[in-house]
Amino acid sequence: MAQLNDHYLKLKAGYLFPEISRRVDQFVNDNPSANVIRLGIGDVTEPLPPAIVDAMHAAVDEMGHRDTFRGYGPEQGYEFLRETIATQAFGSRGVDVSADEIFVSDGSKCDTGNILDIFGAQNTVAVLDPVYPVYVDTNVMAGRTGPATDDGRFEGLVYLPVTAENNFVAPLPDRPVDLVYLCYPNNPTGTVATRETLTAWVEFAREHDTIILFDAAYEAYITDPDIPHSIYEIDGARDVAIEFRSFSKNAGFTGIRCACTVIPHELTGTTTTGDRIDVHRLWSRRQSTKFNGVSYPVQRAAQAAYSTEGRQQVQELVSFYLENARLLREGLEDVGITVYGGVNAPYVWLKTPGGGNSWSFFDRLLDQAHLVGTPGSGFGAAGEGYFRLSAFNTRANVEEAVGRFQQLVS
Amino acid sequence: MAQLNDHYLKLKAGYLFPEISRRVDQFVNDNPSANVIRLGIGDVTEPLPPAIVDAMHAAVDEMGHRDTFRGYGPEQGYEFLRETIATQAFGSRGVDVSADEIFVSDGSKCDTGNILDIFGAQNTVAVLDPVYPVYVDTNVMAGRTGPATDDGRFEGLVYLPVTAENNFVAPLPDRPVDLVYLCYPNNPTGTVATRETLTAWVEFAREHDTIILFDAAYEAYITDPDIPHSIYEIDGARDVAIEFRSFSKNAGFTGIRCACTVIPHELTGTTTTGDRIDVHRLWSRRQSTKFNGVSYPVQRAAQAAYSTEGRQQVQELVSFYLENARLLREGLEDVGITVYGGVNAPYVWLKTPGGGNSWSFFDRLLDQAHLVGTPGSGFGAAGEGYFRLSAFNTRANVEEAVGRFQQLVS
Repeated sequence: MAQLNDHYLKLKAGYLFPEISRRVDQFVNDNPSANVIRLGIGDVTEPLPPAIVDAMHAAVDEMGHRDTFRGYGPEQGYEFLRETIATQAFGSRGVDVSADEIFVSDGSKCDTGNILDIFGAQNTVAVLDPVYPVYVDTNVMAGRTGPATDDGRFEGLVYLPVTAENNFVAPLPDRPVDLVYLCYPNNPTGTVATRETLTAWVEFAREHDTIILFDAAYEAYITDPDIPHSIYEIDGARDVAIEFRSFSKNAGFTGIRCACTVIPHELTGTTTTGDRIDVHRLWSRRQSTKFNGVSYPVQRAAQAAYSTEGRQQVQELVSFYLENARLLREGLEDVGITVYGGVNAPYVWLKTPGGGNSWSFFDRLLDQAHLVGTPGSGFGAAGEGYFRLSAFNTRANVEEAVGRFQQLVS
Repeated sequence: MAQLNDHYLKLKAGYLFPEISRRVDQFVNDNPSANVIRLGIGDVTEPLPPAIVDAMHAAVDEMGHRDTFRGYGPEQGYEFLRETIATQAFGSRGVDVSADEIFVSDGSKCDTGNILDIFGAQNTVAVLDPVYPVYVDTNVMAGRTGPATDDGRFEGLVYLPVTAENNFVAPLPDRPVDLVYLCYPNNPTGTVATRETLTAWVEFAREHDTIILFDAAYEAYITDPDIPHSIYEIDGARDVAIEFRSFSKNAGFTGIRCACTVIPHELTGTTTTGDRIDVHRLWSRRQSTKFNGVSYPVQRAAQAAYSTEGRQQVQELVSFYLENARLLREGLEDVGITVYGGVNAPYVWLKTPGGGNSWSFFDRLLDQAHLVGTPGSGFGAAGEGYFRLSAFNTRANVEEAVGRFQQLVS
């Protein structure tokens, strides 16, 4: 009698974004002529940069000729891409990460979920609240939590609230935790972590033998030179941190699919018999056994994001979305809305005007302004009363959205 | 204190193919002038068909223009591809599979491993022996087995030997099992399952409430019209089977990465409280939460494998490799070697000449003939004394390999 993984049944009805899609689809169905502008899901809208398109074409051509055809690639990624990332994404900032510590994958969502495969079931896990739902849901699915409580939190997880009251700086856990997810620049709040904040986390992790799962998917949006892009800019982090990087939001790869995970050789964990073994070896085994590497043309496309032209074109994309973020932030502030984030990040996080709850504001915004955002409470109990807007859209849509928003709340 | 998943430590030193790579690399390093021909790993060598190259170029161009750019796709795959597969891969054979039962992914290796996420820890799992190592290793990693025994088998798994003695037809389990992996055409033995064999499995599964995990990655190699390509050609299979399909070995996608998994709506499993729930819903949730869909140009490439030109070009590829298989099979038989498979499958499975063990024959073949194959024992205890040759190679290499093989054993 095949038994299913019951832990899935603890999850709420839907992953946040499918639920948003459902409501939007319903609205569009009922109002077919409405011009709905979607600032909900953090999905890019600008086309792939030409340097990346060219590299991908060239790689596709290679696959069409016998003498340049490539079959299975290394599960951990091609050396050309791992070397490029090590040099360009880390070395260029004085961060010591070697090519063989980089595991190329098809997405940070996959990696932040799959990484749990290599950890034991007994770990205590901490997350910020609000939080990217994947961190929570994958722990629920893996059986590391109890059932959901009324506010949507899961028993067994340690939630660290980040709100305006603590200036969006998470308190360190008041007890030892084994794994902690940190995402900076933060999704959903659009806030960043200073060097001091990250140093405190690394010291906490070193003291309590905690592993930090550091999601740096949005690091390209950092414009402030004092804000670290990588956890490894902090002394001692190589002993305690895994870092996730993505090509989705900088190079526009949400539909192309490429990311990577960094596991330093120094990082160790404990077996049930108390031995320490390196985490790199386990993840390498996981990927060799359950993954077949990223599509070759996609890896060439990712490499091209670091060519001279590619870097410039990617920077233009990032600047474009940052300007959208500025327009949103300032446009909302102009009508008295309290806004956070949106400076070193592509997300604007706001207090719901009028102080209503997040989902009712979602419905009001959709019904009356035909705008889609993301309810803060969808990211966690401490997100209630907040709302996320994404800067990933065309300029015209962002300008139109600001106008409609202003009209709605004025 | 971050605890690791100890179950990984039960695994033997390496996944089979990395171990082969290690020995081959060592040999090449010691013998840099040797012309090594690799018939080990089942990796395609012929270039991508032109219809597929063209479709991929067109999709890359779409991604380079604002009005045709696509960001995140559906995690379960684009409708255009799911519909194409439903119609062309199943409907054309009279098999009833709907588009929304098809989950597009980046590989069958990923899917056959990840599928375990949605099953409980207490299931009893059966595999054929010899077996594709991923089925076993992913169960070990998920904690569904005890430690390895001396012959490499893992406590807790039910092994069903397939050897020349039973004509490579697995005995049905002598006890109820909850999950059983079947791979037909079989990797590694190159043998196929008749309609009668598959009917017996479906009846067993229906009687014992077993879920069949049916890996049809090599179905395109079936030339015998009486052999089913899909488990769903058997009455009642939709209630008890998940099927895995791949574009790797037919359309040459080992480096491009596309596959799919079929979960019929009728398929249910049991919760610990005894309720029956549908498996489709759990897998959909798993993919929505831990996967972000397949690269858009790759999905267009996969769709093109079913266009009029694409189908013809893919058929030419399959025929080419089947002719390689015939040359290997007949060339080895000519010098008195006992050979199985290689008719409806791209693998030839042979008794090691002289009756030696599999790894010593591997070393002898590499040292003396500079040929790489795969030791049968690497696929399981019942594979000891057998050896796998892959038909995935150029014609010239296959002909040269046959000559060297004949010289070695004559």
